[in-house]
Amino acid sequence: MGDPGGIGPEVVVKALDDSALRTRARFRIHGAEAPLARAAQRAGIAPFWWRVERGSALLDTTLAHDVVIVDAGEPGAEFPAAPARRSGELSFQFVEDAIRDVQRREGDPLRAHALATAPISKEAWSLAGHARYPGHTELLATRFGAKRHAMFFDSSRLRVVLVTTHIPLMNLRDALTIGRVFDAIDLGRQACIDLGVARPRVAVCGLNPHAGEHGLLGDEEQRIIEPAVRVATDHGWLVEGPFPGDTVFGRALAGHFDLVVAMYHDQGLIPVKILAFDEAVNITLGLGAPRMSPDHGTAFDIAGKNRANPGSMKRALELAVRMSADQARGHP
Amino acid sequence: MGDPGGIGPEVVVKALDDSALRTRARFRIHGAEAPLARAAQRAGIAPFWWRVERGSALLDTTLAHDVVIVDAGEPGAEFPAAPARRSGELSFQFVEDAIRDVQRREGDPLRAHALATAPISKEAWSLAGHARYPGHTELLATRFGAKRHAMFFDSSRLRVVLVTTHIPLMNLRDALTIGRVFDAIDLGRQACIDLGVARPRVAVCGLNPHAGEHGLLGDEEQRIIEPAVRVATDHGWLVEGPFPGDTVFGRALAGHFDLVVAMYHDQGLIPVKILAFDEAVNITLGLGAPRMSPDHGTAFDIAGKNRANPGSMKRALELAVRMSADQARGHP
Repeated sequence: MGDPGGIGPEVVVKALDDSALRTRARFRIHGAEAPLARAAQRAGIAPFWWRVERGSALLDTTLAHDVVIVDAGEPGAEFPAAPARRSGELSFQFVEDAIRDVQRREGDPLRAHALATAPISKEAWSLAGHARYPGHTELLATRFGAKRHAMFFDSSRLRVVLVTTHIPLMNLRDALTIGRVFDAIDLGRQACIDLGVARPRVAVCGLNPHAGEHGLLGDEEQRIIEPAVRVATDHGWLVEGPFPGDTVFGRALAGHFDLVVAMYHDQGLIPVKILAFDEAVNITLGLGAPRMSPDHGTAFDIAGKNRANPGSMKRALELAVRMSADQARGHP
Repeated sequence: MGDPGGIGPEVVVKALDDSALRTRARFRIHGAEAPLARAAQRAGIAPFWWRVERGSALLDTTLAHDVVIVDAGEPGAEFPAAPARRSGELSFQFVEDAIRDVQRREGDPLRAHALATAPISKEAWSLAGHARYPGHTELLATRFGAKRHAMFFDSSRLRVVLVTTHIPLMNLRDALTIGRVFDAIDLGRQACIDLGVARPRVAVCGLNPHAGEHGLLGDEEQRIIEPAVRVATDHGWLVEGPFPGDTVFGRALAGHFDLVVAMYHDQGLIPVKILAFDEAVNITLGLGAPRMSPDHGTAFDIAGKNRANPGSMKRALELAVRMSADQARGHP
């Protein structure tokens, strides 16, 4: 559910207010019922969920309901539309609870096959004493013991995977390695396959202006990126680059590539946000299960006003269902 | 005219094949007549120019013609659609000749008030022995003795000015200073005023993901960018930021800002090229006169095929006329 004071509760109830989506999977909302119910009421949505108190033994049984709220909140609790300690404690715990669902043993009918995360406030996590996890991704990577992981953005017009994410730009000097570039190519390409692209065509960005212009404007392309691309093509994959960052996205939009591998946060997210602001879904790859999140934050400024657009969260849930379908098949 | 083997000759004749534009100013094309005439013939354009041989004393007189080709080429000369020494020699000389027109003394009726440059090949310049100028901008900055200059991109949807341009990304550690950020704000804001925006609203990008997130992801925002913004606001200018690079362009597109100040090449050019590929005009600010160039390269792959789109060059010439109108007013 994300931060209880943000737009998470609202986009979750709005996204699940679609009986067709609800019948395609079983959903557990780790959250607090009070803000979810208030958001539904404001939006004129009739309750479609079944509430179970957090810690109840019922949660270890298979329930007949499509949507179960695992309620960790107090009845009628109010949460400020701002970073707050209590909201940080709860939203951190929601994620921990959801991780436990994913980590149930193979074959357990209660095992979760995908995880969708509504936005949390990093400041709230910090106030709650969880500053060492700047966000979902780092917490998930720790809990899943992931050796490698990557942020991937899916939208109808563009797919992007990032080699590096939330680090100071100048730290790329040390952070960018052949292995990391290769891992992002590998994980991103596999995600495209899971999303139905049989033979993904992958474009890799350069780091420097004009992709270094043959070494005139930086050597990371020759030292790091080209070798990673060669390892990938040696696998027989359709991987090209490094290409200049300022023209490769136009080529992808024109249909030449299924995926663009960006070296750093803004290089990949500037085009994603321009082209698919309300629609892009962020998928963390390389964890125990695909983890989706909408491409927006807590948006405290519009929280509680029934103004949030659930489009990205809805696409996140649809992708979660799609990418976990193979795993789930055969289970009760 | 740019590289004689690129699409420069074609976009120049196509852009000037508009008698309304031609009557708004006097144009001198420093180039070679042969490729210009061939491009016109392929496009079915009737000659609208008067040819004068380079070096002719006629060029020091006021000519009655709207468009004069200063012909430095041999009759019928052919140029390969690839980087070549001879093309590099000529295209370098075209720029030097044009600079002399701009540098004529104030009041000289032959003084040029703006300069538009068709694309050159950096490799051709290098083959011709001009490797120490990686492009137009550096040559112009040297010849004009410019203490500060900035690349500015104008399009109908977005205006962007760059703090740094063609340097390795990791060199930003040393290149980014309070003074350079301030100069880009100042030059870019003045250009907006010259383009008719009475009181420009300027947004400044951060360098790091999420604009450094209050110092968690890098300190350049606090050390360099915020102080530069403060100097600007102390002048009474409408300048805000630093904002996260991945969301500021959406806000500018939504009409909140007239100009975005980007810290480095790809941060500014990824959005410009996605949003205004054929339309954006690159203006170099801070030289003796505004210098415009279209936002594309030599495009050797389509040169000589009558397939080049002159839209960006035409907008470059229209802006050149507009930005030089004040200077030119009153001159014969």
